[in-house]
Amino acid sequence: MHFTSSMSFDGVREQLFTLDGTPGVLWTPEGATGTRPLVLMGHGGGQHKKAPDILALACRIVAECGFSAVAVDVPGHGDRPVDDEYDRIATENRARVAAGEELAPLVAGFQALVARRTVPEWRAVLDAVQRIEHVGPGPVGYWGVSLGCGLGVPFVAAEPRVRAAVLGLGGALASAEHAARVTVPVEFLVQWDDERVPRAQGLALFDALASAEKTLHVNVGRHGEVPAFERDSTLRFFARHLA
Amino acid sequence: MHFTSSMSFDGVREQLFTLDGTPGVLWTPEGATGTRPLVLMGHGGGQHKKAPDILALACRIVAECGFSAVAVDVPGHGDRPVDDEYDRIATENRARVAAGEELAPLVAGFQALVARRTVPEWRAVLDAVQRIEHVGPGPVGYWGVSLGCGLGVPFVAAEPRVRAAVLGLGGALASAEHAARVTVPVEFLVQWDDERVPRAQGLALFDALASAEKTLHVNVGRHGEVPAFERDSTLRFFARHLA
Repeated sequence: MHFTSSMSFDGVREQLFTLDGTPGVLWTPEGATGTRPLVLMGHGGGQHKKAPDILALACRIVAECGFSAVAVDVPGHGDRPVDDEYDRIATENRARVAAGEELAPLVAGFQALVARRTVPEWRAVLDAVQRIEHVGPGPVGYWGVSLGCGLGVPFVAAEPRVRAAVLGLGGALASAEHAARVTVPVEFLVQWDDERVPRAQGLALFDALASAEKTLHVNVGRHGEVPAFERDSTLRFFARHLA
Repeated sequence: MHFTSSMSFDGVREQLFTLDGTPGVLWTPEGATGTRPLVLMGHGGGQHKKAPDILALACRIVAECGFSAVAVDVPGHGDRPVDDEYDRIATENRARVAAGEELAPLVAGFQALVARRTVPEWRAVLDAVQRIEHVGPGPVGYWGVSLGCGLGVPFVAAEPRVRAAVLGLGGALASAEHAARVTVPVEFLVQWDDERVPRAQGLALFDALASAEKTLHVNVGRHGEVPAFERDSTLRFFARHLA
């Protein structure tokens, strides 16, 4: 793990790093020492580790909960090199949708492919970050919607350090098998008028989660229109399960 | 409106009253003066105006938000006389369910019948309570699940003073027509394993609400097992929309 920069603002310390070629960012409370809960965050498709929704939520996790947060670029996103195979598949998929094919199964297949790389990458990030003194081996949460859900469900299923997860804007086609192995508390977001994930697919993924405690939050609006008050709910959820 | 008793505890003043023969209870902050938001609460089937979930939530509405809260007994419940017609229907319905008929349509028919009485009764309660100096004509919220939803949806649809409502554990069979006239923000509760309201019925009632802002909270468990943290969410919802 190699840190490339460090800056502080509003009580939050932000450190950029690379780990085996994966660019990432770690947020911790300024001046923090000792072990604390950590939230790993998975960004959406076409976004990156410091996309506005990731950055805003990470800062609140640090400032309001005193936890740390970490995010890395998904292959083919952010500061990572273009991935020729993913690019070819994405181009193919766009052409297939234009020709009338359904979007959801194509997205599902693509996310399953990417998850085979991100699950081990994210587990390695946890290993490395938890060795830092002011992060330490505390309880871990996961946050990710859309692509961050498609990649997050297999990650949460595979990683026993994760104790609670906020997921959503994803469907059962991509993730139902992995969801059946998720047993930690989950808060799951569905947009009632999601133009990318059919309503029934989102409900079916919530249903497929094996968690004894799981809560579904449905709001009116399209894929990108999750209301701001859900961010407050996310913070309370993590505070309840990780603090 | 005739007050029959008054007591105070933990900063909450509780006054029992009757209004045209309807027994009710008003909770306000101890020593309060002037207008404040008011939440009208509808109790569940077989319960009454001071059932534990009503009382607990009312006290928090008063103590934590500084609002007032009011609840009355539904006909045939609590301190109201036995209603022979309702009793006869309830007995008939039990026999029909025992003979294999579906429960939901029978409940729906019964609630529609009762709502024809409770909607005008509750509107009269609002009129009377809002004339009290330490309640006043402030913004009004409604809270009610199960029977409190079946009676609440037509009430919220009919009463323009209501600005926000928490509803749930009810189905579209009973309430979809009225729901299409509800336009205020709604937080709607569904229990994923509800043995009384089929899952699809609950989702269909949420869908039928005409509100531009509506949020569905689904939790794992049976009809009576809404988790305690939903009460926190209810308080925040009313604080956001009525304060």
